[in-house]
Amino acid sequence: MTELFDPLYAAGPVAAATDAAAWLRAMLDVEAALARAEARAGLIPAGAADAITEACDTLAVDPAAIGERAVASATPVVPLVAALRDRLPSEFHDHVHAGATSQDIVDSAMGLVAARALDALDATLGTVSQSLARLAREHRDTPQIGRTLLQHAAPTTFGRVAAGWLVGVDEARALLRHVRRERLAVQCGGAVGTLAAYGNRGTDLVALLADELGLAAPTIPWHTTRGRIGELAAALGVTAGALATVAGDVALLAASDIGEVAEGSPGGSSAMPHKRNPARAVLVTACATQVPGLVATVLAAAPQELQRAAGHWQAEWPVVGTLLRLVGSAATHADAMLAGLRVDAARMGRNLDAADIPPGGGTGSAGHLVDLALAAHEEAA
Amino acid sequence: MTELFDPLYAAGPVAAATDAAAWLRAMLDVEAALARAEARAGLIPAGAADAITEACDTLAVDPAAIGERAVASATPVVPLVAALRDRLPSEFHDHVHAGATSQDIVDSAMGLVAARALDALDATLGTVSQSLARLAREHRDTPQIGRTLLQHAAPTTFGRVAAGWLVGVDEARALLRHVRRERLAVQCGGAVGTLAAYGNRGTDLVALLADELGLAAPTIPWHTTRGRIGELAAALGVTAGALATVAGDVALLAASDIGEVAEGSPGGSSAMPHKRNPARAVLVTACATQVPGLVATVLAAAPQELQRAAGHWQAEWPVVGTLLRLVGSAATHADAMLAGLRVDAARMGRNLDAADIPPGGGTGSAGHLVDLALAAHEEAA
Amino acid sequence: MTELFDPLYAAGPVAAATDAAAWLRAMLDVEAALARAEARAGLIPAGAADAITEACDTLAVDPAAIGERAVASATPVVPLVAALRDRLPSEFHDHVHAGATSQDIVDSAMGLVAARALDALDATLGTVSQSLARLAREHRDTPQIGRTLLQHAAPTTFGRVAAGWLVGVDEARALLRHVRRERLAVQCGGAVGTLAAYGNRGTDLVALLADELGLAAPTIPWHTTRGRIGELAAALGVTAGALATVAGDVALLAASDIGEVAEGSPGGSSAMPHKRNPARAVLVTACATQVPGLVATVLAAAPQELQRAAGHWQAEWPVVGTLLRLVGSAATHADAMLAGLRVDAARMGRNLDAADIPPGGGTGSAGHLVDLALAAHEEAA
Amino acid sequence: MTELFDPLYAAGPVAAATDAAAWLRAMLDVEAALARAEARAGLIPAGAADAITEACDTLAVDPAAIGERAVASATPVVPLVAALRDRLPSEFHDHVHAGATSQDIVDSAMGLVAARALDALDATLGTVSQSLARLAREHRDTPQIGRTLLQHAAPTTFGRVAAGWLVGVDEARALLRHVRRERLAVQCGGAVGTLAAYGNRGTDLVALLADELGLAAPTIPWHTTRGRIGELAAALGVTAGALATVAGDVALLAASDIGEVAEGSPGGSSAMPHKRNPARAVLVTACATQVPGLVATVLAAAPQELQRAAGHWQAEWPVVGTLLRLVGSAATHADAMLAGLRVDAARMGRNLDAADIPPGGGTGSAGHLVDLALAAHEEAA
Repeated sequence: MTELFDPLYAAGPVAAATDAAAWLRAMLDVEAALARAEARAGLIPAGAADAITEACDTLAVDPAAIGERAVASATPVVPLVAALRDRLPSEFHDHVHAGATSQDIVDSAMGLVAARALDALDATLGTVSQSLARLAREHRDTPQIGRTLLQHAAPTTFGRVAAGWLVGVDEARALLRHVRRERLAVQCGGAVGTLAAYGNRGTDLVALLADELGLAAPTIPWHTTRGRIGELAAALGVTAGALATVAGDVALLAASDIGEVAEGSPGGSSAMPHKRNPARAVLVTACATQVPGLVATVLAAAPQELQRAAGHWQAEWPVVGTLLRLVGSAATHADAMLAGLRVDAARMGRNLDAADIPPGGGTGSAGHLVDLALAAHEEAA
Repeated sequence: MTELFDPLYAAGPVAAATDAAAWLRAMLDVEAALARAEARAGLIPAGAADAITEACDTLAVDPAAIGERAVASATPVVPLVAALRDRLPSEFHDHVHAGATSQDIVDSAMGLVAARALDALDATLGTVSQSLARLAREHRDTPQIGRTLLQHAAPTTFGRVAAGWLVGVDEARALLRHVRRERLAVQCGGAVGTLAAYGNRGTDLVALLADELGLAAPTIPWHTTRGRIGELAAALGVTAGALATVAGDVALLAASDIGEVAEGSPGGSSAMPHKRNPARAVLVTACATQVPGLVATVLAAAPQELQRAAGHWQAEWPVVGTLLRLVGSAATHADAMLAGLRVDAARMGRNLDAADIPPGGGTGSAGHLVDLALAAHEEAA
Repeated sequence: MTELFDPLYAAGPVAAATDAAAWLRAMLDVEAALARAEARAGLIPAGAADAITEACDTLAVDPAAIGERAVASATPVVPLVAALRDRLPSEFHDHVHAGATSQDIVDSAMGLVAARALDALDATLGTVSQSLARLAREHRDTPQIGRTLLQHAAPTTFGRVAAGWLVGVDEARALLRHVRRERLAVQCGGAVGTLAAYGNRGTDLVALLADELGLAAPTIPWHTTRGRIGELAAALGVTAGALATVAGDVALLAASDIGEVAEGSPGGSSAMPHKRNPARAVLVTACATQVPGLVATVLAAAPQELQRAAGHWQAEWPVVGTLLRLVGSAATHADAMLAGLRVDAARMGRNLDAADIPPGGGTGSAGHLVDLALAAHEEAA
Repeated sequence: MTELFDPLYAAGPVAAATDAAAWLRAMLDVEAALARAEARAGLIPAGAADAITEACDTLAVDPAAIGERAVASATPVVPLVAALRDRLPSEFHDHVHAGATSQDIVDSAMGLVAARALDALDATLGTVSQSLARLAREHRDTPQIGRTLLQHAAPTTFGRVAAGWLVGVDEARALLRHVRRERLAVQCGGAVGTLAAYGNRGTDLVALLADELGLAAPTIPWHTTRGRIGELAAALGVTAGALATVAGDVALLAASDIGEVAEGSPGGSSAMPHKRNPARAVLVTACATQVPGLVATVLAAAPQELQRAAGHWQAEWPVVGTLLRLVGSAATHADAMLAGLRVDAARMGRNLDAADIPPGGGTGSAGHLVDLALAAHEEAA
């Protein structure tokens, strides 16, 4: 259903960073980087690394064909390595994928795919965050009735509300950056994680591969130590929650009965042309709602048996991709939602005046809190 | 990442029954059926229904174009109805989608998509079930050591083990059939679920639409009464569990240390040509592991507010599709796993003989239990 | 944290039906029923069954002591059977728990606990359903603005809205009744599910035990065939969604900005005495929100290996209990929420008049739909 | 069911740190700290703070009574503050809970409860980690057949296997420590998060309260910015996965068919006295299996509306408590499992010799990887 629903659930640049071509590119990038790292470690000739890199850079493979052939071994690496060897003179065949296991390639490729997707996501979250900062700044002192349990409670300002959203998105973004930098790691361990094929150069090789790929080097191979993937999934889960909090509030504040904000290009209806639907807020929520269950899937798949898991590991690949796409899509819709958000300060004022609350309540430190959120935002940027 | 990973996670006929084309076909089938039902109810001219049906049958739409235009309204129905009207003479424009709301079309189409996917799944489960029945029958009296908490416990027979798998799959299949027949319903309520556009013909129209589409007729429109979708998701969740139970046992019994079964075409390894990997069992587990989190997503999206939800409803579409595909894929891999399963009765015998258990334990009613499971299987077929 | 938070998350009669005493009672009831069934099957003397039943009926065990001693074997049955034997003359020791395995007792007891809890839940849902039917009937023709995506859309009636809630709860209740009757089954299989200790009386014994306990008889023992538990969990998940839908709508309609309903005894606030918080709606949502993740846990635990699972089975016990309690609690709070619900028809009228929608829209078949929902409700009762 | 099942699912010191008394203690500690912080900020007299602290330190409240009275307002703070005021001379009544809202108290108390529970968990994980380090060190060079997809693959050492477990637990522990230090924060915002009651002393007050409680100070109040709770839940989820990985491997390696390890005090069986059940491994898995669904619940509850959520916030309290207890219990059982773990190096040798793998494979850098894991372990300690 991809083509039909992707604009809703896979909007924005993360989609391209996680599609079939991106995975194949990442796997080939890993094979090439492994060859170069092995050459640097003196394990294979430099010429072999050059030839393999050239082949990886230019190999055109049909994703569907690789996929079909992946079924027999439950991994796409077996047919991909075969295709790569076919492309090279036989003298280099043994230097392709030398000493590696399928999981070395797939896990490192998953790291690359995630890294590239997180970089794209970071950019989108950056514009979301800027929009929120702008709203907080512009409406620093715009009074609004605060609502707790949906009941009118006491005055706040819309800037204060936006500052809360801002801090949520900024903190999620910082968490994602931490995961990108520290937890996306190369995998390099060989058949059972002992680096058996590399003599006394194994652990050096891991560091070289990490250098080649711009990923972290793990303490030791992590074939069945899946905390890294759990942390990635969880950070995406926290980000989805931050975005959905904004979207939920926008949809509520845009409710006809409240009317304090409106999307710049509200959605139409097939039955009711007069409707002004908060379509982007709806899509943010629709994407984010799908995320927690997927995080649970990743965490539930973490107990992976012995030296390679028979099913739990293989469940991670599509779920990590979907998580990245959904959060990327939520961020993209949030960006569109906020870019054109119309704030009806007059209506806020009228709603506040009409609220049946005790008189005399002020907005306290709302403005100062906006300043603090903005200062933290500036510092993080 | 579809093309690359679909053979792993979307194997079998359910995939085609749930892709973009299938969704568009279902939505057009619903618009056509609605027009015919409205004609039968005297709400629009028969000629309009004929023209609309003809247009729906032949309209070629680009899924990506509909998807892109769906963003503005957060529903693909708005651009689809526009495309449909464009295709028809203006005299019929008002008869297209007459009185309906987007959710009427999407929910009914989701019912159709699910119905067609469940029919395909039922066929695959039928062959899985036959394989299991064959194993139970053939190995009714093949002794095997029973293992509890992975410890040798007492004798059983492999037929008894297979009978347990069989009952699990057969009961899941019966549950899916129940959902297919009773719970996949048309949606027909108009803008706020009052059938306001249909005068006193509204509730008749619902029944006629159900008749046209071969789906159940609900008591009343269920725009924000989502138990039906929860039951569908849950039945798929139970089915995934039944299949994963078999696959997990096959992988364990195929372990080198046990060696009592082997897949007919075990998988190779990129590093270890001697490996005999239980690749299909791995793929069943990889698919099934993704299911419970998605069921939770559907259930968590059930509280849908007032007359149409702002996000929770829209989260259902891709999740229901993914659930169907994953379970269809698990069934397809299970079918392949079982079709060629090799049972090593001699090894079972040796393992049993070597087990450090008290002497004299028999296999009790194992054979009779096999007979009971087979009898229930025959009755269900 | 039980005592403090139970009134919030374990309100109502289900709590007592699922506590430690209830589990111990159920396990003892199963041991007694097993003895009686074995006597009826001619497997043990009638006098032994009498003595065991008497001992089970009167044995006072300390839950904490049993729990502490359960750690060593990862099952409470081992110490419970020891306590039971201690209580009886040695001539009956071999007749206690004869031929059974721990899982026979725990699974059957889980069935009993669930059955008793579902009976209590059914009663609470009955009063919830009656309240909803009353609201639908009384407000059959009370006009209200319908809201889709929180935007004013077209007129409906509050009775129609309540009818939607009613159908959701009634259908969930029917699903629970089905599970209660058909899917809560005895477990009786012996060490590895072969009924090895019972000669040719094994399958008869299963039927007799089912008769003794008022639970269903399975086709064959289901130690690692867990679809039944998945169906129970799923039905509770669907019920939670139905209740949360009502609660979410009540909280929204009670929002100060809408003000169309109010709880009879709205909650106060520690900071704002003027607040009229929808406290019961909040608690329904708080309970129901915890449910989908637990359903996923049960489904994820379904793949249970070989003849008894090393962890997945043992994860079911507390989760099933918590699921029952949470849904029972949600129903109890929903009952309180609805019993005193104040409907402000005048405010509904003013909100409808103020809505910026096209003139002339009627409420269509809203009244007729109420009648249909009420008729289905009467039929189910 | 607490007393009966707590030894299984709430073993160890975390249970007492999260029970009803612990929550009440934490809430009273927060009220006392708030009073002292307010006195330091010049907002209330020092004498009032002293009196309030004294009252909080000595107030004996019945959890059940507070719980019952919490229903009306959906928060235990309303009755607790009432009880506290009752205890004090009327001159201090206005100084109790001055300017605070219920959520300030509950969120800060949740932070305290979590902090104390994490401190207890950290100690347990410390002994788990030490046991793993010991196993890695002692068996640095004990050869073992490596198994991928449960198939014999190539040689490794048991020390290398234990090193993988060790890194998983150590990294989870580091993550928990980060959350403990950086993300467990005080909540202090007043009714709608504007610190309205504190004049220009509001933000200073937040810092003082953080100082009093030993928790982090947030950028701004975070009533509906729930990333912190998501990060806490996720870190517990990652930890559960790390522990379950060890337990799953122990159960597998302890399988009769493999027999390479055994628990020091294996469990008995009600039916089979010869059984040597890996009871602690089973309990670790049983606890950990319940965790991912609860993490999803916390993440799904993150979108909290406007200034205080009507249900999602209230769902967090019991789930966070259960998460802490389950992971604490998993750690406690893992500790017992490992403390007495028997490693059968001779059997490992025989299994390796019997493996049908290509000759000549060595254990590569296994020993060096053990050294690296131990070095990282030492550094973290």
